[in-house]
Amino acid sequence: MSVTAARGFTAAGIAAGIKQNGNPDVALVVNEGPKAAAAGVFTANRVKAAPVQWSQQVLKGGTVRSVVLNSGGANACTGPQGFESTYATAQKAAALLGHSVSEVAVCSTGLIGVQLPMDKLLPGVERAVAARSASGGEQAAVAIKTTDTVHKQSVYDGEGWTLGGMAKGAGMLAPGLATMLVVLTTDADLDSAALDRALRAATRTTFDRVDSDGCMSTNDTVLLLASGATEVTPPHEEFAEAVRTVCDDLARQLIGDAEGSSKDIRIEVVGAATEDDAVEVGRTIARNNLLKCALHGEDPNWGRVLSAIGTTNAAFEPEQLNVAINGVWVCKGGSVGEDRELVDMRGREIRITADLNTGGDSAVIWANDLTAEYVHENSEYAS
Amino acid sequence: MSVTAARGFTAAGIAAGIKQNGNPDVALVVNEGPKAAAAGVFTANRVKAAPVQWSQQVLKGGTVRSVVLNSGGANACTGPQGFESTYATAQKAAALLGHSVSEVAVCSTGLIGVQLPMDKLLPGVERAVAARSASGGEQAAVAIKTTDTVHKQSVYDGEGWTLGGMAKGAGMLAPGLATMLVVLTTDADLDSAALDRALRAATRTTFDRVDSDGCMSTNDTVLLLASGATEVTPPHEEFAEAVRTVCDDLARQLIGDAEGSSKDIRIEVVGAATEDDAVEVGRTIARNNLLKCALHGEDPNWGRVLSAIGTTNAAFEPEQLNVAINGVWVCKGGSVGEDRELVDMRGREIRITADLNTGGDSAVIWANDLTAEYVHENSEYAS
Repeated sequence: MSVTAARGFTAAGIAAGIKQNGNPDVALVVNEGPKAAAAGVFTANRVKAAPVQWSQQVLKGGTVRSVVLNSGGANACTGPQGFESTYATAQKAAALLGHSVSEVAVCSTGLIGVQLPMDKLLPGVERAVAARSASGGEQAAVAIKTTDTVHKQSVYDGEGWTLGGMAKGAGMLAPGLATMLVVLTTDADLDSAALDRALRAATRTTFDRVDSDGCMSTNDTVLLLASGATEVTPPHEEFAEAVRTVCDDLARQLIGDAEGSSKDIRIEVVGAATEDDAVEVGRTIARNNLLKCALHGEDPNWGRVLSAIGTTNAAFEPEQLNVAINGVWVCKGGSVGEDRELVDMRGREIRITADLNTGGDSAVIWANDLTAEYVHENSEYAS
Repeated sequence: MSVTAARGFTAAGIAAGIKQNGNPDVALVVNEGPKAAAAGVFTANRVKAAPVQWSQQVLKGGTVRSVVLNSGGANACTGPQGFESTYATAQKAAALLGHSVSEVAVCSTGLIGVQLPMDKLLPGVERAVAARSASGGEQAAVAIKTTDTVHKQSVYDGEGWTLGGMAKGAGMLAPGLATMLVVLTTDADLDSAALDRALRAATRTTFDRVDSDGCMSTNDTVLLLASGATEVTPPHEEFAEAVRTVCDDLARQLIGDAEGSSKDIRIEVVGAATEDDAVEVGRTIARNNLLKCALHGEDPNWGRVLSAIGTTNAAFEPEQLNVAINGVWVCKGGSVGEDRELVDMRGREIRITADLNTGGDSAVIWANDLTAEYVHENSEYAS
C-alpha cells in the first residue's frame, strides 16, 4: 500500500518522542532504485518553512533518494536555527543511507514558530532508517498525521507499473498547523521532466482546488519519486492520468477528514468566460464563512452564494446568475427560483452549481462547512 | 440622540409586522429642511440589492428629503418584483410627505432572496410618517436592528452645529444578512459636494477598515443628510473630522457587537511601503480563520499571522517581519521573538502589530474572533 506499493521503495514510521502523546512522528521514504528521478510542488506562501526552502533546492537537481518527514513541528518561522535543523536532518539520513545530502528531501508539519527537538529527531531518523522495509508504507502514512483522524493512502495499478501515495492534512490551502504533505512513488521509468509535467498538471486541478478553510500553509509539499524498478516507461497521457487519479483520491480524502467538518461541499462553476474566472468564483464561494455556516446548518441559503459571487472580478451579469443546491435551481436569473424547501441537505456531500451564463468554461472546487468543532479544535491547538 | 440630534430632522421607528417576532422593523428619517443636501456610499458588491440600486440613483441628484429603512428582509436578489417593492416604498413616503419620489432613499436589511411583504411595509410607512418626531431618533435606531444586540448611535457637537448618526450591522464587510446601514444627519449648511467629500474620506478609514467576517454585503449603505437648519457652514477640515469621528465611533460599536464575537481585534500594520500594502496585509490577517480561532482561545499563535502575511502581494522580506501581540514582540526577524507566555490576552480587545520593515506607511483594521456562537447564529438564521 501507499508509498511502498511501487517496487523499489522502502519506508518506515516510528515514534521519536517529538509528539508529547507518544504517537508516531517520524516517517522515512527511501527510493532504493535503480533510478531516482523526482519532481515536487510546494506552497505558494511567501513565508516558507525551512524544510520547504531546503527541499525546493534539492528538487532543482531532479534527484531524490530519500525523504524524511516529521510531524509534531512545522519548523517554520524558526530562523537560521530552523534551517540548520533541516540540514542536520538531511545530513543524518544521507550519512546513514549513503546518499548525497543534496538528494534528501525534508518535510515537516505541526506548530509554526517552534524549534524542532533535534535530540529526539536525529535518533528518530536513525531508527527509521534501520526499520525501513518494503511493507513500511502504512506506518509512514500514520507517522505524518497531525490533526488527521485517519491516515490517507492511494494506489493506481498501471500496465506493468504502479503508482502509490500517502497524504496528510486538510488541503493545499490548509491550516497553517496541519499542513498538507504528500509523497507519491512509482516504479515506472521516467525522468524528472516527465514527472514534473505530470505532477504539475495533476496538482493544478486536484490539490490546488481543495479549499478547506482558505488558509494557505507555510509547509505544503507534494513529491513524486520514480525508481524505474519495472523498467516500464508508460505513455505520458497514461501516466499523467494515473497521477491525476491518485492526487484526486488523496485530495478527496483530505476534504473528507478536514478539521471539524461535517459536510463536503462540491462547488462547480459553469458557464464561465475563462477557467480562471470559474476558479476565482468557486474559491470565493468556498471561502464565504456565512455560507459555510449555513451549509453546516443544512440551510440552502443561496443569497450567500450570490453575495460571494458579487465580490469577484469574474465576467457575469447579476441578473443572469443561476444557482443550484443539490440539483434544485433555487436561484434563477439572479432572483428567487425553485422552492428552497425542495433541497435535501441531509447527506454529507453538498453540491453547489453556479452558472455564470457567460461562456463555456468550468471548474470544480472542494470545500468544507464551518463548524463549532473547527473553532474548538483551532482555538485550543497550541495551548 | 442619533439622527434627530441635529436640528431639522424628525424620525420614527415602528413595528409593521415584517419581523415575525413583532420587533420594530420600519424606520423613517425625514429632513424637514430648510435644505436637503445629501451624499451616500454604497456596497462595492456587484450583486446589489434593489434599494441600493434605487438609492444610488437618488443620490446622483444630490438631494434626499427622506429615508425609509426596513429590517426583516434585504430585498436583494429579488428581481423586477423586488425593484417594484423599493419603488412603491419610496412612492408611498413621497406621497405622504409631499416629497418627489426621486428624493426618497430606501434601505433594507435582512435575509437575501425573499420578497418584502408589501401589505405590511406600506401601512408601516404610513404609520412611521404619522409617528415621526424630533425625538424619534432612538426608535429609528432600534427599528433597523437585525442580529444586533444593541442599537448604535453617535453624536458630535460642533461650533453651533451638530452631527448625529445611527448604525446597524457588523461592518462594511459584513454578513450578507446583517448588512450595515448608517444614516448620518447634520444641521450644518453644506452642499452635496462638500458632504460627499467628507463622507468618502471618513468611510475610507473607518467602515472600510472594519472586517468582521470577510463577507461583503449586498445592501451596505451610508447616507449623510444636511438640513442647513443652523445656517452654519463649518470649515471643511472641521466638518470632515466630525464625520470621521462619528463614523469611527459607529464602526467600533459595530465591531463590539459583531455576531457571536468575544474579542475585538485591532490589527495595525506599520512599516509598509504603501498604504495599500498596509491595508492588504491587515485585511488578510483579519480574515484568517485559523488566527481568529486562536485569538478566541487566547492563544498568541503568531505563526498564523506570518502565514497570513505570506499570502499577500505586499512588499516585505519574510526574515524581516516583526509581530507583536498586546505589546509583546513574539516574532522578530520572521522568527521566534519574546516569550509567548508573556502575552496577556484576557481582555476583550486584542492588539496585533505587524511591522513589514519596508517603508513608512501604516493602516489599522478592526476585526473579530471566530467563535462557536458565530457558527450557531449563522447556521440557524434562515431555518
